[in-house]
Amino acid sequence: MRLMPTHPIFTQPVPTLARDGDAIVVLDQTRLPFRTEQRRLATLAAVATAIQSMEVRGAPLIGATAAFGVAIALGSDTSDAQLDIALKTLAATRPTAVNLHWALGRMEARLRPLPASARLDAAWAEAETIRAGDAETCAAIGAHGVALLEAVVARRNGLVRVMTHCNAGWLATCGAGTALAPVYAAHALGIAVHVWVSETRPRNQGLLTAWELREAGVPHSVIADNAAGILLARGEVDLVITGADRVAANGDSANKVGTYLKALAAREHGVPFHIAAPLSTIDFACPDGTAIPIEDRGPAEVRSVQGVAADGSVQNVALVPDTTGAANPAFDVTPARLITSIITERGASHPGRLRDLFPEAP
Amino acid sequence: MRLMPTHPIFTQPVPTLARDGDAIVVLDQTRLPFRTEQRRLATLAAVATAIQSMEVRGAPLIGATAAFGVAIALGSDTSDAQLDIALKTLAATRPTAVNLHWALGRMEARLRPLPASARLDAAWAEAETIRAGDAETCAAIGAHGVALLEAVVARRNGLVRVMTHCNAGWLATCGAGTALAPVYAAHALGIAVHVWVSETRPRNQGLLTAWELREAGVPHSVIADNAAGILLARGEVDLVITGADRVAANGDSANKVGTYLKALAAREHGVPFHIAAPLSTIDFACPDGTAIPIEDRGPAEVRSVQGVAADGSVQNVALVPDTTGAANPAFDVTPARLITSIITERGASHPGRLRDLFPEAP
Repeated sequence: MRLMPTHPIFTQPVPTLARDGDAIVVLDQTRLPFRTEQRRLATLAAVATAIQSMEVRGAPLIGATAAFGVAIALGSDTSDAQLDIALKTLAATRPTAVNLHWALGRMEARLRPLPASARLDAAWAEAETIRAGDAETCAAIGAHGVALLEAVVARRNGLVRVMTHCNAGWLATCGAGTALAPVYAAHALGIAVHVWVSETRPRNQGLLTAWELREAGVPHSVIADNAAGILLARGEVDLVITGADRVAANGDSANKVGTYLKALAAREHGVPFHIAAPLSTIDFACPDGTAIPIEDRGPAEVRSVQGVAADGSVQNVALVPDTTGAANPAFDVTPARLITSIITERGASHPGRLRDLFPEAP
Repeated sequence: MRLMPTHPIFTQPVPTLARDGDAIVVLDQTRLPFRTEQRRLATLAAVATAIQSMEVRGAPLIGATAAFGVAIALGSDTSDAQLDIALKTLAATRPTAVNLHWALGRMEARLRPLPASARLDAAWAEAETIRAGDAETCAAIGAHGVALLEAVVARRNGLVRVMTHCNAGWLATCGAGTALAPVYAAHALGIAVHVWVSETRPRNQGLLTAWELREAGVPHSVIADNAAGILLARGEVDLVITGADRVAANGDSANKVGTYLKALAAREHGVPFHIAAPLSTIDFACPDGTAIPIEDRGPAEVRSVQGVAADGSVQNVALVPDTTGAANPAFDVTPARLITSIITERGASHPGRLRDLFPEAP
């Protein structure tokens, strides 16, 4: 890891994931940005439901949370059968993010060979290693990615204008985030940054990004997803950075639906488009984007939205009647040719050269 | 006009604009799709406010409504000074749609030379001519545009899948619509059509499109604006048709923000991208897209959304705190090179050859 000596350690304002005895405590992200509520998850079913319902979200955080879910599941029964149930239940929660499978694979590799009596302590220890490793990974992505923002300052002294999509900040990880880690690093170094925050319908995770940027004191503006094209066309964006849910071996990257439209517009206007993603998001077994399964989350999310009513209550309001047809593909694939670089914990890579950075990865 | 003999006359389920004595009655489109409410506008100020607040919206409908607004303004005073006030007040309501200026220009050309005593009757008559002309224009766009859908059927017998953006249907006009006129024509001819309806944040005019398609019995699915890219990439779209708010002489077209992203994705996947727009939307005095003023509607629309709460009430819910920065460019410009054709009342034209269709236009 090539951490810059001046790079500050990022502390999450509220921990996204922490152990609490035989359970974990997570931030309920379906309540944000309206309510900051923590939830204690003490059973395998509770962890699985929290991931599926997106109370816990963000590819790296999903992975770490699932790892703790295995430890929780082994609390009363450390048999092979129980380990199988835990791995299978957690693997079935979300189809697109590969960090989930990466984390579960690590847990299985660590626990399967052990005698049943040694599994529980090892499970908690391994989950904690994954959590701490994710925080370190975020810091490294920030240290490498900040060079891209420093290059903008060197070229054109002044504000660096970053566009992002969805939420790939500290809320999505156990550390400083992936896509936003370079932004937090720049902000800490005194570089003037402004972030264009795409609201990211239908789930509006961009509003989580706005919330966490505000918590961290980083200037930003929320925009409708539709506004990305004109902002890029007007030259109001210096670089686009998003996270990813799965990066194929050739660099094709699945991320929250709408990412692809930003990548097309960025290319059209010569604006660099970067993906920030750790090794745990890279699926070398997946040759290209056509092999990435795309989750369809059903019509309900498109038909409604959550907000705060005049009386201060959080309401889910219907946008169209329940009988209106709706389609809801939750991710899209940005082909490697549209990606300037993939920023990993080992540095920024040409999307087609990821293997060079991780020669030992399976 | 080359109307197909089998083309049915389209009747609006609810009139978008009708004269009522010395006033007009319009549909309040800020209440749709939740409430179907008509409003009677009896003063110049009421008409101007209705256009500015988007109770009346859609480029062709704005033009016709403004024409009636001139007649209403002359009700008590037909002097030159009053005509000037009416034209100036209405022209200032919305900056991007050129139909507004086209309709006001027609009214001025008709009324200015007349003696004051003859102006009032002439104003109502000219406004009615503009209204009826818009309905005929929509029918002609439908008749010409339906050939594009018939060509899809001829090539691949089965469902024709059209993607649109914002609302350019009957709600936006005095007739069958612009972008949706070919869809209604195809539906009436028994062609199986399915429309992908982009919700069109921040104002969600796509939900007006879903509402009017449902009223007309045309199958459709609402999608998040972000989903356009993956649907095009998957080959689930046969053609994209949108309206426009202003078409420059070279074919560059301003339309609701987000149109440009769809045009980029359509080109990437070889899917035809059409603009449906009457002569009143074409601004031959505007050389290209860089000369089109883009309305900035301020942050409030991005920070909130309207929907129906569990108790059935229509609520405006906040998505982020009022203090959150937001940017809201309301339109973007799709360059002519991304546009397959512009469907006008005189036929479909290569975007660069509009002048050939309208040699006499100023």
